[in-house]
Amino acid sequence: MSQKPSLHTSLSPALLHLYDLSNSTIVIIDVFRATSTIAAALYNGAKCVIPVDSVPKALEISRNIGGIAAGERDGRIAEGLEHGNSPLEYSRDFIENQTLVLTTTNGTRLLQMALDRNASTIISGSFPNLSAVCDYLISEKRNVVLGCAGWKDRFNLEDTLFAGAVINQVKKYFDIYCDSSLMAETMYVKNKSNLAAFAPKLTHYHRLVERFGLIEDINYCLTADVANVLPIFAEGRLATHQKNL
Amino acid sequence: MSQKPSLHTSLSPALLHLYDLSNSTIVIIDVFRATSTIAAALYNGAKCVIPVDSVPKALEISRNIGGIAAGERDGRIAEGLEHGNSPLEYSRDFIENQTLVLTTTNGTRLLQMALDRNASTIISGSFPNLSAVCDYLISEKRNVVLGCAGWKDRFNLEDTLFAGAVINQVKKYFDIYCDSSLMAETMYVKNKSNLAAFAPKLTHYHRLVERFGLIEDINYCLTADVANVLPIFAEGRLATHQKNL
Repeated sequence: MSQKPSLHTSLSPALLHLYDLSNSTIVIIDVFRATSTIAAALYNGAKCVIPVDSVPKALEISRNIGGIAAGERDGRIAEGLEHGNSPLEYSRDFIENQTLVLTTTNGTRLLQMALDRNASTIISGSFPNLSAVCDYLISEKRNVVLGCAGWKDRFNLEDTLFAGAVINQVKKYFDIYCDSSLMAETMYVKNKSNLAAFAPKLTHYHRLVERFGLIEDINYCLTADVANVLPIFAEGRLATHQKNL
Repeated sequence: MSQKPSLHTSLSPALLHLYDLSNSTIVIIDVFRATSTIAAALYNGAKCVIPVDSVPKALEISRNIGGIAAGERDGRIAEGLEHGNSPLEYSRDFIENQTLVLTTTNGTRLLQMALDRNASTIISGSFPNLSAVCDYLISEKRNVVLGCAGWKDRFNLEDTLFAGAVINQVKKYFDIYCDSSLMAETMYVKNKSNLAAFAPKLTHYHRLVERFGLIEDINYCLTADVANVLPIFAEGRLATHQKNL
């Protein structure tokens, strides 16, 4: 009997301890906007993205290596930095062959938690690189935890919708015995035909659009496969995974 | 401008710390089966239900007051007890004028957490007493936290569906700015016409039905208003709330 690998969804960093990461691939999901921005930067030719947990560390590392320090706190460019967390900032003209040193409220924190919990493999996922994530999970045939970054430990629907999109594509290759995953896929299937129309119902939408006017960011972050690379974490940095040929 | 009270949904005890309980009514939700059993016992004339966190404490208190010790661990009658966590055990013949001393895996633990966090008012909710809960929340006009007990801190859908049922009935009386609540109501509306048919998809269903054959329990726990009382917590016990006339 060939047993399939398992797949679980962690709806918040505060629930991550419930899942065994040491034998799993974890997908870090921060749809608005860290993991969408990581996909965009790598797709547009960044050498790598170094996720860090503080603005001083971002400044120090970027100075040392000649990289670009960037990040946000509470949805806007962090004090002391010149570049933020908008995927639209990272065009090829700007980011090609550069190293991005990135600090964010939720996504980089979850990545650090996954490291602390000895995750076997860490990748980052977002709608812009949905297919690359799914292809990788199917080909690797390992247990998977879809890790939603949420907002300051609160559940959010945009990360859940992305988890649901992954589940919808990969489910026949996994044993899924997890109410969070069932819910995530249900919410995705119900809204997939028009994610942009659903977005105004989300709390985070109000934070980003009504306060900061970031409607173009939102639309980019909800569009599948526009930056279809696979960011994989190793030795302190996220870089594009090269398939073995 | 008349501001409405707020309503939030906490999807797991591990997320409860994110919500301010000191100025709120919290609804303890453990659909399978603690809060359904509490509703059934009180509806059938129990004097009160004393929730406790351990089997020895349940035995000691019940001995001291001449009550009935009951409870479960991992879905079955706890070792050392004669009565479990099935609402069907607590018929009027058995429970009328008795005091039930109850210990459970998830629901009584969440209630203790709400106490520790100085919840202003604690009530218990389940499909069997859905309308009583909604009527109370509407009449009190206070902030509300719907607290899902989950399963050992994991998200579960049956508690979420009940939260969604409450939201569906009370939402026009509250300001709801909470992705968890939006998701809960969406899942409820999608499945409300046939909750029993949806139940076999739930992880907890398999625990209760495939392992212990508790299909009648499940059906009772998903039926609205069959034990329509309002259990309210005061002085260490849950008793039926008497409306002020």
